[in-house]
Amino acid sequence: GYARLDTHRALRTGDPEVVYGEGKSPAQVVEILGRLRAAHPDRPALATRLDAEALAAVAAAHPGALLDAQARCAALGDLPAPRGSVVVVAAGTTDAPVAAEAALVARVSGAGVRRVDDVGVAGLHRLLAVRDELDAADCLVVVAGMEGALPSVVGGLTGVPVVAVPTSVGYGAAFGGLAALLGMLSSCAPGVVVCNIDNGFGAGLFAARVARRAAG
Amino acid sequence: GYARLDTHRALRTGDPEVVYGEGKSPAQVVEILGRLRAAHPDRPALATRLDAEALAAVAAAHPGALLDAQARCAALGDLPAPRGSVVVVAAGTTDAPVAAEAALVARVSGAGVRRVDDVGVAGLHRLLAVRDELDAADCLVVVAGMEGALPSVVGGLTGVPVVAVPTSVGYGAAFGGLAALLGMLSSCAPGVVVCNIDNGFGAGLFAARVARRAAG
Amino acid sequence: GYARLDTHRALRTGDPEVVYGEGKSPAQVVEILGRLRAAHPDRPALATRLDAEALAAVAAAHPGALLDAQARCAALGDLPAPRGSVVVVAAGTTDAPVAAEAALVARVSGAGVRRVDDVGVAGLHRLLAVRDELDAADCLVVVAGMEGALPSVVGGLTGVPVVAVPTSVGYGAAFGGLAALLGMLSSCAPGVVVCNIDNGFGAGLFAARVARRAAG
Amino acid sequence: GYARLDTHRALRTGDPEVVYGEGKSPAQVVEILGRLRAAHPDRPALATRLDAEALAAVAAAHPGALLDAQARCAALGDLPAPRGSVVVVAAGTTDAPVAAEAALVARVSGAGVRRVDDVGVAGLHRLLAVRDELDAADCLVVVAGMEGALPSVVGGLTGVPVVAVPTSVGYGAAFGGLAALLGMLSSCAPGVVVCNIDNGFGAGLFAARVARRAAG
Amino acid sequence: GYARLDTHRALRTGDPEVVYGEGKSPAQVVEILGRLRAAHPDRPALATRLDAEALAAVAAAHPGALLDAQARCAALGDLPAPRGSVVVVAAGTTDAPVAAEAALVARVSGAGVRRVDDVGVAGLHRLLAVRDELDAADCLVVVAGMEGALPSVVGGLTGVPVVAVPTSVGYGAAFGGLAALLGMLSSCAPGVVVCNIDNGFGAGLFAARVARRAAG
Amino acid sequence: GYARLDTHRALRTGDPEVVYGEGKSPAQVVEILGRLRAAHPDRPALATRLDAEALAAVAAAHPGALLDAQARCAALGDLPAPRGSVVVVAAGTTDAPVAAEAALVARVSGAGVRRVDDVGVAGLHRLLAVRDELDAADCLVVVAGMEGALPSVVGGLTGVPVVAVPTSVGYGAAFGGLAALLGMLSSCAPGVVVCNIDNGFGAGLFAARVARRAAG
Amino acid sequence: GYARLDTHRALRTGDPEVVYGEGKSPAQVVEILGRLRAAHPDRPALATRLDAEALAAVAAAHPGALLDAQARCAALGDLPAPRGSVVVVAAGTTDAPVAAEAALVARVSGAGVRRVDDVGVAGLHRLLAVRDELDAADCLVVVAGMEGALPSVVGGLTGVPVVAVPTSVGYGAAFGGLAALLGMLSSCAPGVVVCNIDNGFGAGLFAARVARRAAG
Amino acid sequence: GYARLDTHRALRTGDPEVVYGEGKSPAQVVEILGRLRAAHPDRPALATRLDAEALAAVAAAHPGALLDAQARCAALGDLPAPRGSVVVVAAGTTDAPVAAEAALVARVSGAGVRRVDDVGVAGLHRLLAVRDELDAADCLVVVAGMEGALPSVVGGLTGVPVVAVPTSVGYGAAFGGLAALLGMLSSCAPGVVVCNIDNGFGAGLFAARVARRAAG
Ligand SMILES: Nc1ncnc2c1ncn2[C@@H]1O[C@H](COP(=O)(O)O)[C@@H](O)[C@H]1O
Ligand SMILES: Nc1ncnc2c1ncn2[C@@H]1O[C@H](COP(=O)(O)O)[C@@H](O)[C@H]1O
Ligand SMILES: Nc1ncnc2c1ncn2[C@@H]1O[C@H](COP(=O)(O)O)[C@@H](O)[C@H]1O
Ligand SMILES: Nc1ncnc2c1ncn2[C@@H]1O[C@H](COP(=O)(O)O)[C@@H](O)[C@H]1O
Ligand SMILES: [Mg+2]
Ligand SMILES: [Mg+2]
Ligand SMILES: [Mg+2]
Ligand SMILES: [Mg+2]
Ligand SMILES: [Mg+2]
Ligand SMILES: [Mg+2]
Ligand SMILES: [Mg+2]
Ligand SMILES: [Mg+2]
Repeated sequence: GYARLDTHRALRTGDPEVVYGEGKSPAQVVEILGRLRAAHPDRPALATRLDAEALAAVAAAHPGALLDAQARCAALGDLPAPRGSVVVVAAGTTDAPVAAEAALVARVSGAGVRRVDDVGVAGLHRLLAVRDELDAADCLVVVAGMEGALPSVVGGLTGVPVVAVPTSVGYGAAFGGLAALLGMLSSCAPGVVVCNIDNGFGAGLFAARVARRAAG
Repeated sequence: GYARLDTHRALRTGDPEVVYGEGKSPAQVVEILGRLRAAHPDRPALATRLDAEALAAVAAAHPGALLDAQARCAALGDLPAPRGSVVVVAAGTTDAPVAAEAALVARVSGAGVRRVDDVGVAGLHRLLAVRDELDAADCLVVVAGMEGALPSVVGGLTGVPVVAVPTSVGYGAAFGGLAALLGMLSSCAPGVVVCNIDNGFGAGLFAARVARRAAG
Repeated sequence: GYARLDTHRALRTGDPEVVYGEGKSPAQVVEILGRLRAAHPDRPALATRLDAEALAAVAAAHPGALLDAQARCAALGDLPAPRGSVVVVAAGTTDAPVAAEAALVARVSGAGVRRVDDVGVAGLHRLLAVRDELDAADCLVVVAGMEGALPSVVGGLTGVPVVAVPTSVGYGAAFGGLAALLGMLSSCAPGVVVCNIDNGFGAGLFAARVARRAAG
Repeated sequence: GYARLDTHRALRTGDPEVVYGEGKSPAQVVEILGRLRAAHPDRPALATRLDAEALAAVAAAHPGALLDAQARCAALGDLPAPRGSVVVVAAGTTDAPVAAEAALVARVSGAGVRRVDDVGVAGLHRLLAVRDELDAADCLVVVAGMEGALPSVVGGLTGVPVVAVPTSVGYGAAFGGLAALLGMLSSCAPGVVVCNIDNGFGAGLFAARVARRAAG
Repeated sequence: GYARLDTHRALRTGDPEVVYGEGKSPAQVVEILGRLRAAHPDRPALATRLDAEALAAVAAAHPGALLDAQARCAALGDLPAPRGSVVVVAAGTTDAPVAAEAALVARVSGAGVRRVDDVGVAGLHRLLAVRDELDAADCLVVVAGMEGALPSVVGGLTGVPVVAVPTSVGYGAAFGGLAALLGMLSSCAPGVVVCNIDNGFGAGLFAARVARRAAG
Repeated sequence: GYARLDTHRALRTGDPEVVYGEGKSPAQVVEILGRLRAAHPDRPALATRLDAEALAAVAAAHPGALLDAQARCAALGDLPAPRGSVVVVAAGTTDAPVAAEAALVARVSGAGVRRVDDVGVAGLHRLLAVRDELDAADCLVVVAGMEGALPSVVGGLTGVPVVAVPTSVGYGAAFGGLAALLGMLSSCAPGVVVCNIDNGFGAGLFAARVARRAAG
Repeated sequence: GYARLDTHRALRTGDPEVVYGEGKSPAQVVEILGRLRAAHPDRPALATRLDAEALAAVAAAHPGALLDAQARCAALGDLPAPRGSVVVVAAGTTDAPVAAEAALVARVSGAGVRRVDDVGVAGLHRLLAVRDELDAADCLVVVAGMEGALPSVVGGLTGVPVVAVPTSVGYGAAFGGLAALLGMLSSCAPGVVVCNIDNGFGAGLFAARVARRAAG
Repeated sequence: GYARLDTHRALRTGDPEVVYGEGKSPAQVVEILGRLRAAHPDRPALATRLDAEALAAVAAAHPGALLDAQARCAALGDLPAPRGSVVVVAAGTTDAPVAAEAALVARVSGAGVRRVDDVGVAGLHRLLAVRDELDAADCLVVVAGMEGALPSVVGGLTGVPVVAVPTSVGYGAAFGGLAALLGMLSSCAPGVVVCNIDNGFGAGLFAARVARRAAG
C-alpha cells in the first residue's frame, strides 16, 4: 500500500492507471495489479514491462490473467468489445516486442487490433502488398529501429493517422534509438506524430483513443 | 516549374501537397501555390513559413487569398465546412506563432478550430478554468516551450488525444526547444504524442485527420 | 588512514565532511565514518550511497547507528534538535530513494523534515490536496524523473524556495535524467533552482541550511 | 491586452509576474509593465531582457522608472525596504551583465544586495580577501562562465547557501555555458544549487526569498 | 602564393587538389585557381563553395570558365571525356544545391552524370518510375535532408553502389543535418556509405572514381 | 518461420538477405540460415554477429559451414570465384574483429580479399611499406578506432576508393567510436566515404560491389 | 578602472595577466593594456582576440605597439630575448590565424618561434620534408581543423612534446571543431596534450613555459 | 606474434611502445611484454590497463617484474635514474588510480615523481599547504573528476606547466568525465593543457618528456 494510486484517472481520462513494472518486485506488481482490478471492476487492469519472474508471479496469483510474454504485459479482467481498428506495423523482426506491447495495450484499451510485421523499407514490395490493410485502419502505429524510415513511407501512402514509435534496435550511430527518433520527428511525410523510444505502451493507448472516437 | 509536384498525394492521403516557404523566393511561392490551386480546385491550396515579403507577394497576386501573419501562412480557395473540433492550447504568449500555424492548418484541413492561449503551468487556475473546453474537443494540440510541461498536465486532465508541440522558446538549457521536446517525449501522462520543434503544421494536419474521423 | 579528511569543514561551513560510499569498501566506510565521528563529537557523522553490504558492516561495527535502507545512508550520533522545516515532495514511487536521501540528509543536518510522495502532475488533485503543507515549509525539495514537470507546478503554487532534483527514472528520450534536468533548468516557474541528477544529498543539505536560517 | 496576466501570482507566491522582454516590442513592454504596475500598486513592476530601444521606450513613458542598462532591466514603483542580505559574486568582468540582473532582481524582490566582481579562481587572493563579506550574507549568488569553478571554491569556504549561475562566457568547449553548467551541477562542494545559463533573474528572485526568510 | 599547393596529388591519387572557397577572398580564389590550372594543363582546375562575388571574379578573370551558380562551383579547362555513369538523386527541391555540387564535381572528375530530382519517399511513385535509370548507373549519389530516408529505399531497389549525402535541410530535431546523417549511417539497406553533411564535393569525387573503374 | 524473408533481394540488388545474429537465439540463426540457403542455392548464405554459442550451433547443424570466429560469421555454400580485389586495412590489433567481418563479407560477396593489419598512423613506416598493395586494389576498406586518422592518410596516398569504418575501440573522449566517426566524416582527404561504427558488414558488401564492377 | 587586475600573477606564475579582447570596447582594451604595461615595466603587455577596430585603437594610442592582424593581437613593450624554441605547425591555410596567435603568444612569453604551414596529412611528403625542424624544437604546437589528424602523425615521428590545438575549420560533422577536439584527445600517438578549440593563446603560453625550462 | 610491434618508436621518439592491456588476454600481455623487453634491453618494458588476472600472469612469468595494482600496470627491467621532477596532484581519493597510472608511467619514462593526494578545491587549505612542492616541480599532472576545478586553481598558483587529467569520477551531469573534460579545456587559468578522460598514461609520459628536458 505504499503507492498513492490515481484511481480517479479513469473518470477524468477514460483509461485507468497502469502498473509500470520496471523497478518493482514481482510481489509489488501483483499487489498493485490487484488493487487496480478492485478499483475498476468494469475494466481490465494492466501491467507492462514485466520480466519473466513478474509474469510468473502474476500467473500464479491470478490464474485467469492474460499473459503476453513478447509484449511483457499482463492483464486482469475480460477484454472490452473492440471499437474501431488499430493496425500495428513493424519494420524488422527485432522490433516485434515493441509492436507487441502497442498491440496489447490498444486491445486492452478497447480497440480492435491487427499486426503487420517485417515490412522494412529495404524491401518495399512487402509494404506495398498490404496497402489496403493500412487504408482500412482508423489509426496506424508504425514501429521501426535503425534509421526509422518506415513511418515516412507509410505516411506518404495513406491518410490514416500515423503514430511512429522508434525502437532501440541498431548499433553505433543508431545511438539506442536516437537516430530513429530524430528521423521520425523530421519526417518528410506530413502529419506523422512520435512517441518515446520503445514506448509501445503510449502509442497503443493513443491509437486506441483515436480508433474509439472514429468508431463513434 | 522546377518542382516535381506530388499531385497524387490528395488521392492517396486525402490532403494535398503544401508549399513550404522556407528557402523559396516570393515568386516561387506564388507560382507553386498557383499550380497547387489549379491541381486541386475543390480544396484550398496552402503555403506555410512565409516571410512578410512572400505574404505580400501572395496578396498581390491573389487578392482573395486568406493571409495569417502570425501563422505566417496563406491559403487560396474557400475553406471547407468544419468537421469535428480541434482545440489548440498554448503555454505562453511567445508560443503564439506556432499555435497559430497549427490552428490555421487544422482549419484549412477541414476541422473546426478554437484557441486557448497563455495557460502555462506556473498559473494552473488559468488551465483549470477551461477544462470543459478541453473535454469537448476531438483532438488537442498543446504548444509549449521552455520545459514543455503543459502536455503532461493536460494529458492528466482529459482523455482527448493530445498532440504536443515543443517550441524553441527559452534560452540556455532549453537548447532551442530540446528541453521541451525531450520532456514531452518522456511525459508521465500516458498517450501524449509529439511533433518536431515548432512544427505547428504537422500537429494541425494530424489533429484535423483525427477530428474529421471522430466526426464520422 | 589513506584519506586526507577535511576536518576544518564544519568550522568553515557549519556542516562536517560526509562519507561518499560509492567505490569504497565496507571496511573503508566503517573506518572513515569512525574517524569523522571522533573528529565531530557534537554532530552525527553521515555516510551516503551505501550498498547492502556496507550498511550491514556499519550496523555490525556501530550497533547504535541510524540506518536507512531506502536512502542508502547511515548516521552515527544523536540527531540534532530540528530547526525550521523542510518538505520533500516526490512525483512517483520510483523517485522514492532520492527523496529518502534528501530527507535523511536534511534531518541529520538539523532541519525538521516531512515527505509527500507520489503526487505527479498527471494527477493534479493529489498535489492540490497538500497545498497548505507546502506553504508551511521553509524550503521545499521537489524530486521528479521523466519530464520533471513537478517543480514548475509547485513553483507556481507557492513562494517557498523550491530546490528541484531530477532523477534518472524514465527510459529512451529521458536519457538517464537529462530530460528532467533540462526541463527543471528551463522551468517557467521563476525561482526554481536545480541539483544534479539523483543528488538527494545536495538538495537535503542545501534545504537544511535555508530552513535553519529561516528558523532564526 | 493580448496577454493573460497571472495577477494572482503575487498572492500565491509573494512575488508578482515579471515582463520577459525577449521577443516583445518596446510598445508591448511598456503596455504590460503598466498593467502589472496597476495590478500591484504596493510592489514595483519589473521588466527584464530589454534592449536599448525598449529601455528608452520605458524611460519615455515612465519618467520615474528605475533603469539599469547593464542588467537590461527596468522597474516601476518605489523599491521595498531591504530585508536580509544577498551578495552577488562574479568570476570575470564579462560575467557582469548576469550578475547585474541577479542583483537588481534581488533588490526589487525585497532583499538588500551587494556585489563582488572579478574574483575568478585563477587569482584566489582576490576571493580570500572578501571571505568575511561572504560569511555575512544570507544567500550568495555566484556567477561564472568558462569552466565555472568559482561556486565550488566559494562553497568550500562558507556555509551560506550558494546559488550558482553559469554564464555563456567562453568559446569552443565552453559550448555557450554548457561546460560551466555541467561543472556547477557536478560541484564537489556540497549544497551548491544551480540556475539556467545566464539566468540572473531566477537566481536573484530565489536568493531574495531565502534572504527575506532569514531576516525573519 | 601563401598556400603550399599539393601539386603531387594528381600523380598519387589521379585527381588534383581543388580550391575550397569558404573563407577565401575572390582574389585568392582566382589566384589559386590559376596556379592549379598551370600545374595541371591536362585537367580542369576546380573551385567549390564560391559565393556570388567569387563566381563573378572568376568569370571576369577567366572568360572561358565553366560557372555553375547552383553548385557554387567554377572550373577552368576542357571537361574530360565521360567514362562510366553517375546518377545523382535528390529527395527535395531544397536539396538541389548539394546535388548540383556532386554532379558538377563528378563530371569534372571524368564521369558522365545525370540528375534525378524531387523524388522523396513521401511520394514513392516518383522514384519507382525511374528504377531503370538507377539500375543503369555505375554509382549512385543519393542526397536527402530531414530524416534522410531516401538512400535506404534506393538501396533496397538496386545493387548499384549508393553514396548517401545528408543535407542540412530541415529544422528542429533535424539539427542541421544530424538526423539525416545518423539515419543514413544506420540504414537498414546494406551497403550504403555516407559522406559529411552537405558534402556534395566528396560524394561526386568518390562516385566518379567508382564509375571510371567500372568503365574499365 | 516467424521472419518474412526478403527473398527477392538477390534479384533486385544482386546480393541476398543476410542473417543479423544480434538478439536471435542459436536455433533461430540455424533455421533462418537454412531457409536462406534453400532460397539461394547458387550463393552462400551468410550470418553475422554470432556469439560462440550460435557459431557452435551452426557448426553442429551444418558440418560443411565456413566459420570465422574473429569475424563472428558463418557461411553456408561454396564461395564464389573472386572478381576484383578488396584490401582491408586496420589501424590497431584491437580493430581486427571489424576488419575480419569486412573481409569475410567481401569474400562471400564475390570479391578477392587481402588484409593489412596494425598499420596505425603513429608508426607511418608500416603503412608506407605497403603502398603498392594499396594502389593495386579496386577498393579499400580502412578500419580504425580512437581518433580514426588512418583513412585520411590512406586517402592522401592513393586514388583507390576508400571506405572508412570507425570502430568502438578507445575510451573517454573516443565515446564508443564517435570521435573516429566524426573524424572520418570530416576527413581532409577528398573522397573518403564512411560506414556506421563497427559496421564491417556494410563496408565489405559495398567494397565487393565496387570491386566486382571494376573487374568488368 | 572597472576591472580588478590580477597584478600579482606575474610573481606567482612568471607570466602577467593578458587582455582578452572579446566583448570589450576598443577604449577598454586600450585602457587595460596601458594599466598592465604600467604594472609590468619589464615585460610586454599583451592583448588578444582584437577586431580591426580595436587593433586600430591600440595603434593610435600606442604608436610603438607590435600589431599582428592575422593573430588578432597587440603587444606593448620590448620583446624578451628568446629562450628555447617553439615550432608551430598548421595543417591547412585556413588554420593560419590560430597558428599565428600561438606563435605570437609564445614569442611574447619569451621563447624563440618558427612556423610551418599547410602540411596536412592528406599530402604527407610536405610534413616528412620538415622532420629535422620538428626534432630540433623544445616544444611543438600542432594546429588542425576538420578531423584533426596531424598531431597523431607528428606525435609518431618525434618525441618532442606535442601540444595539439583543434580549430573550428570544417563543416557538418566537424561541428565547429568538436571532431578535431575529440580526435586529438583520443590520439593513438602517446603523449599528445590538447587545448581548447581555437585556443592558440593557451598553447603558445604553455609551449613557451616548456621551452624556457628546456633552455635551462 | 599477431601484433606488428613498432620497435622503431624508441628511436624516433625516445620512448618505446607500451602494451595496452584492455581487451588482451593475460597470455597475450605476457607475450608482447616479453617481446618489447627483448627489443629494448636498455629500457623497462611497460604494460598498462591490466586486470588482476593479467597482473598475476605477469608476476608468474616474470618474478622480477614491478607490479602496481592501484595503477594497474607492470614493468619489466630496471627503472632508469630519475631526471627532472614530476608532481602528480589528485583532487579526491577516488581519483587515485588515474594518479597512480600517471605517476608510474612518468617514473618508468625516466622522471622523478611525487604524489599529492586528496587536495580538492572544496578544502583549499590542503592545497595551499603544498604550494612550495608545486613550485619546485618541472611539470605538474593534475587529476580531478566531478567538475574538474583543481587545474584552474593550481594554474593560478604556479607557473609550472600543468597537464590536466579529467577522471570519470562523479554521476549524473558529470557524464562519465565529460563535465571535468569540458571544464579543464575551458579553464580560466592560462596554459593548462588536457588529456583524455582517465588517461594517466598519456599525462605521465608527456610530463616525463617535459621534466627530462628541463633537467637538461
Ligand atoms: N530574465 C528572465 N529569465 C527567465 N524568465 C523570466 C525572465 N524575466 C521574466 N521571466 C518569467 O517570464 C514570465 C513572463 O513571461 P511572459 O508572459 O512571456 O512575459 C514571468 O512571470 C517570469 O516568470
Ligand atoms: N566543397 C568541398 N568540401 C570539402 N572539401 C573540399 C571542398 N572543396 C575542396 N575541398 C578540399 O579542400 C582542399 C583544399 O583546401 P585549401 O588548401 O584550404 O584550399 C582540396 O584539396 C579538397 O581536398
Ligand atoms: N553485421 C551486420 N551489420 C549491419 N546489418 C546487418 C549485419 N548483418 C546483417 N545485416 C542486415 O540485417 C538484415 C537482416 O535483418 P533481420 O531480418 O532482422 O535478420 C540483412 O538483410 C542485412 O541487411
Ligand atoms: N593506458 C593507455 N592509455 C592510452 N593509450 C595507451 C595506454 N597504454 C598504452 N597505450 C598506447 O597503446 C599503444 C599499444 O597499443 P596496442 O598495439 O593495441 O597494444 C602503445 O604504444 C601506446 O601508444
Ligand atoms: Mg527482416
Ligand atoms: Mg504569460
Ligand atoms: Mg504513481
Ligand atoms: Mg578579470
Ligand atoms: Mg518536393
Ligand atoms: Mg599496435
Ligand atoms: Mg592546403
Ligand atoms: Mg576527500
